[in-house]
Amino acid sequence: MTLLYVLDIVGTLVFSISGAFRAVKYELDLLGVLVLSVATGVGGGCVRDLILGSTPPAAFQDETYLLVCLAGGLLVFLAAGRIARRWDCVMFADAIGLGVFAAIGAAKASACGLGTVGVIMMAGVTATGGGVIRDILVVEIPAILRTDFYATAAICGGACFVGAEYAGLPLGAQLACCVLITCGLRFLAMRFGISLPKIKSLPSSPSNLTQMHRDRKD
Amino acid sequence: MTLLYVLDIVGTLVFSISGAFRAVKYELDLLGVLVLSVATGVGGGCVRDLILGSTPPAAFQDETYLLVCLAGGLLVFLAAGRIARRWDCVMFADAIGLGVFAAIGAAKASACGLGTVGVIMMAGVTATGGGVIRDILVVEIPAILRTDFYATAAICGGACFVGAEYAGLPLGAQLACCVLITCGLRFLAMRFGISLPKIKSLPSSPSNLTQMHRDRKD
Amino acid sequence: MTLLYVLDIVGTLVFSISGAFRAVKYELDLLGVLVLSVATGVGGGCVRDLILGSTPPAAFQDETYLLVCLAGGLLVFLAAGRIARRWDCVMFADAIGLGVFAAIGAAKASACGLGTVGVIMMAGVTATGGGVIRDILVVEIPAILRTDFYATAAICGGACFVGAEYAGLPLGAQLACCVLITCGLRFLAMRFGISLPKIKSLPSSPSNLTQMHRDRKD
Repeated sequence: MTLLYVLDIVGTLVFSISGAFRAVKYELDLLGVLVLSVATGVGGGCVRDLILGSTPPAAFQDETYLLVCLAGGLLVFLAAGRIARRWDCVMFADAIGLGVFAAIGAAKASACGLGTVGVIMMAGVTATGGGVIRDILVVEIPAILRTDFYATAAICGGACFVGAEYAGLPLGAQLACCVLITCGLRFLAMRFGISLPKIKSLPSSPSNLTQMHRDRKD
Repeated sequence: MTLLYVLDIVGTLVFSISGAFRAVKYELDLLGVLVLSVATGVGGGCVRDLILGSTPPAAFQDETYLLVCLAGGLLVFLAAGRIARRWDCVMFADAIGLGVFAAIGAAKASACGLGTVGVIMMAGVTATGGGVIRDILVVEIPAILRTDFYATAAICGGACFVGAEYAGLPLGAQLACCVLITCGLRFLAMRFGISLPKIKSLPSSPSNLTQMHRDRKD
Repeated sequence: MTLLYVLDIVGTLVFSISGAFRAVKYELDLLGVLVLSVATGVGGGCVRDLILGSTPPAAFQDETYLLVCLAGGLLVFLAAGRIARRWDCVMFADAIGLGVFAAIGAAKASACGLGTVGVIMMAGVTATGGGVIRDILVVEIPAILRTDFYATAAICGGACFVGAEYAGLPLGAQLACCVLITCGLRFLAMRFGISLPKIKSLPSSPSNLTQMHRDRKD
């Protein structure tokens, strides 16, 4: 389990760096950088733990996570330019973090007795919840809802975790399945620009319909 | 209680459809549609359960709710046009869902020992929390804060639930009171375009005053 | 402890007034004013209690807090102009509230066994969480992330609380330290316009880099 812990810390660091860069983009002050680092680094796990009723969340029980997030934020504050030049490394580590977070989320949800859909959702929430909080804090529509094949990779990884559970594999193999599938899909998506289908907004869009409906009633 | 369960499922389905249509409006991808469906369908109940300390939230204990939300999202993804043409049916079912959610929220809060204000608030939170999360995820000011007589109907229903409790009525009658008052008020509001009073922004608005205050201090 | 309770109520009232003024700025209706009052007044404490697993949150166990928030909202709804003319008094009481909330947050977190970083964070979350929720509800980037020396005062207060704990001082002295330092720093910041450093957005910003990275991959 030590390897998983190390990877978890690496994932937290990279996620916090992604949060700090968002703060830089909006020219927030030092506090803004640190808040976004922490929120992005441990936000997904905190939401998962609140839903599972496992309080205080893991990040508050082992403060290493919080310290790693603060370190990530300071790193960006002091050396944003140098990190930005190695953005491919950041993206690589981010994909690893995505897989590890999904696996840990699925394992915790399964241990709490959640069902199939719940376990898969918790894989997605753990892996992407921090990024959603980051985007909401800077008033952007969360990136995972729009284009990227990102949360979907975590969800597929969560499904593999459940599948491996049904197949009777031990916990270690379930975790490995989830990490490998999530990271693999994410790498493929980055390499080949995979994205999910979407539908165009309707010509007579539902919001117009609501408006019409109201106008008629008024 | 079986009728209440069926109505609860219907409400969840309709709320998830409203979430999915919001995703279509912003041209989100399939994942975005499903996330907004689930968040809108079960978000209010989840916030309520987190506040009441009843974890994991009901939707994760009976996964029917999550599956119904996913079905609602897929339905919109595949047949948005056809559903939009029957928008009056959607609005009708939405009002039913509002009443049922308010009643369930009030009953759970009351069972957890919350006071009068808390029970009424939980009726409102259960009925409208999902919609608020939906609006925040697409970066809109929540609709219930602006114009509609929507949350107010749920709050009045919650007040009737408490009133019926004080009057010594059994739980079934309390639930019926809450559903009928909420749905009735919502139908009246849709029919006659009722809305709450508002005040115009001040000519010397408080934010300007803050600004002035700061300028003076600087 | 009675003095602390009175100051806590005063802080809640002032925070709810600040929430209500935000609603007025966006011309929300009466419900919007009341929702923002309650969310701003008790939101920080609720987030803290959810993280600490102390449910239902304090505001729902002693409904005085909720009633005070509703009173604050109604006050603004009825007499916004008169309150706005005494904005300096509101800012003064707001600084007091900041200190009291930080002290209560730190004390609760410490009692729940959180570590140093956790206690300091809970001081900040209790004092500023309500304001963050207020800003998110009206789709603004939270004020504390951008410019003000506001959350930072609460965080310094939380650090003093922890320091006083290490020094072996009794709880009363820890609370007093936290309130005095937080209020003192906040007054100084308002008086002299202190703010935190920030870094300019990079010429080759990381989001562009991500874009480039993606373009190259596509």
